[in-house]
Amino acid sequence: MTLRVLKGHGTENDFVILPDLDGQYELSPQLVRALCDRHRGIGADGVLRVVRAEHSGQPVDGAAWFMDYRNADGSVAEMCGNGIRVFLRYLSAVGLVDKCAAVATRGGTLRAWLTDDGDICVDLGQPRVLADRPVVTAAPCVERVPGVEIEMPNPHVVVAVSSRNELLQLDLSTAPTVWPGRPDGQNIEFVATVADHQLAMRVHERGVGETRSCGTGIAAAVVAQGQPDGSSWRVDVPGGSAMVSWRADGGVLLTGPAVIVGEMELDGRWLAAATASQ
Amino acid sequence: MTLRVLKGHGTENDFVILPDLDGQYELSPQLVRALCDRHRGIGADGVLRVVRAEHSGQPVDGAAWFMDYRNADGSVAEMCGNGIRVFLRYLSAVGLVDKCAAVATRGGTLRAWLTDDGDICVDLGQPRVLADRPVVTAAPCVERVPGVEIEMPNPHVVVAVSSRNELLQLDLSTAPTVWPGRPDGQNIEFVATVADHQLAMRVHERGVGETRSCGTGIAAAVVAQGQPDGSSWRVDVPGGSAMVSWRADGGVLLTGPAVIVGEMELDGRWLAAATASQ
Repeated sequence: MTLRVLKGHGTENDFVILPDLDGQYELSPQLVRALCDRHRGIGADGVLRVVRAEHSGQPVDGAAWFMDYRNADGSVAEMCGNGIRVFLRYLSAVGLVDKCAAVATRGGTLRAWLTDDGDICVDLGQPRVLADRPVVTAAPCVERVPGVEIEMPNPHVVVAVSSRNELLQLDLSTAPTVWPGRPDGQNIEFVATVADHQLAMRVHERGVGETRSCGTGIAAAVVAQGQPDGSSWRVDVPGGSAMVSWRADGGVLLTGPAVIVGEMELDGRWLAAATASQ
Repeated sequence: MTLRVLKGHGTENDFVILPDLDGQYELSPQLVRALCDRHRGIGADGVLRVVRAEHSGQPVDGAAWFMDYRNADGSVAEMCGNGIRVFLRYLSAVGLVDKCAAVATRGGTLRAWLTDDGDICVDLGQPRVLADRPVVTAAPCVERVPGVEIEMPNPHVVVAVSSRNELLQLDLSTAPTVWPGRPDGQNIEFVATVADHQLAMRVHERGVGETRSCGTGIAAAVVAQGQPDGSSWRVDVPGGSAMVSWRADGGVLLTGPAVIVGEMELDGRWLAAATASQ
């Protein structure tokens, strides 16, 4: 038994890519955990299984591809804004698509395309800005600050901090408190304005902790700034930078890098042990 | 340009293995850092370059192989007790050696061999127990405790703690203080006796921080217990377990697992960017 996978990342949000065009693999939680283990496996924030839509067994809404995204802990996830860029990079790199694709996810179908300068743009669709203003606390400098609650469509709370320096001082080694919080948790973005149309951001992801980047969180950070006027915003995260445009028609475009590191053939004994362990 | 590497680990001390039998690759610090980067690269604690002794340009003392070990930060390292097991596993898995090999390292030539149960044993040679008893402090429960200073041949200070519970409570997110310390630093092992001939250990490695395992540190922990009577000790570390025997002739044998995860062909564009970046 062998299995070929790839590793890739978008602004250091990294993924194991499992090409499974005909939908033949059983992606068990223990295999996902084994692949994503940074010391015993390859190491990644999640797994992107690449399946032709017709073999996915999922509602695909006219899309040609289905992105089966799993978190590193083995749980099923709806969507991943950095992951979908890496997903398209893979399809394009191996010639399965030319420059664009409609990709079905558990959070709906999204279009993604290569830009002229080699980055990848994703239309994340319409955000939903909620009326609630949950209160967030994070040591040492954010205490009971109202945040903006946004569904992208996954839940985010965006909190403004006064400066990049304050942002860097935040201790995100433990989860910030949110009141009222969602029963299933939410991602929390701390955002400082550092120049005109330029933000700096750190993010605490539900079930993960602080990460180097969160694609939908980057989009939510811009949505929280104001109006869908189509202007471009640059958002700096620990893992790099991405551009966001919130268009007049309500759609949010996320543009950023997507990198393939290499392709790995997993060792048969490792794979047997990984799929046997619980 | 392509490059094929493997990933492997021993008690979760993980490595990128670069087969370079004819000694053709320039292993620059930036390539090592890029390979070891856990989000932008493959991710590992270090790189093991596999070179035939005659092509290594190193003093090899009759060994057939040279293990060129680099730390994740790109610096050159003398030896790695977990790495040399993974090194032999690679040689054996691809049929370059049968069951044993003499491996030259910058810390001298060591013999390693497969055991009957599939683990790998390394003769780490003679430890040197120094007369100094440097004093170690680590919050919250180790305060000015005398440690045993051991060269394996890399420098270690082994500190006894009273229980596994105390061991688990240690905060090793910052470096313990050692007085007097070595100018180049030292690895510090905290060790609790948990049963007859069974130890539990956590380690803070110089220049790295807390790690899941340290092979020479596991050996030093047993040497610090007493006498070279050839008895077998089990040492549990966060990344797994290994066995150590300090023989009457003074040599220390370290036996433990070594796992190959898979073989990766690095993407040409990734490699070009990694070797171009500083």
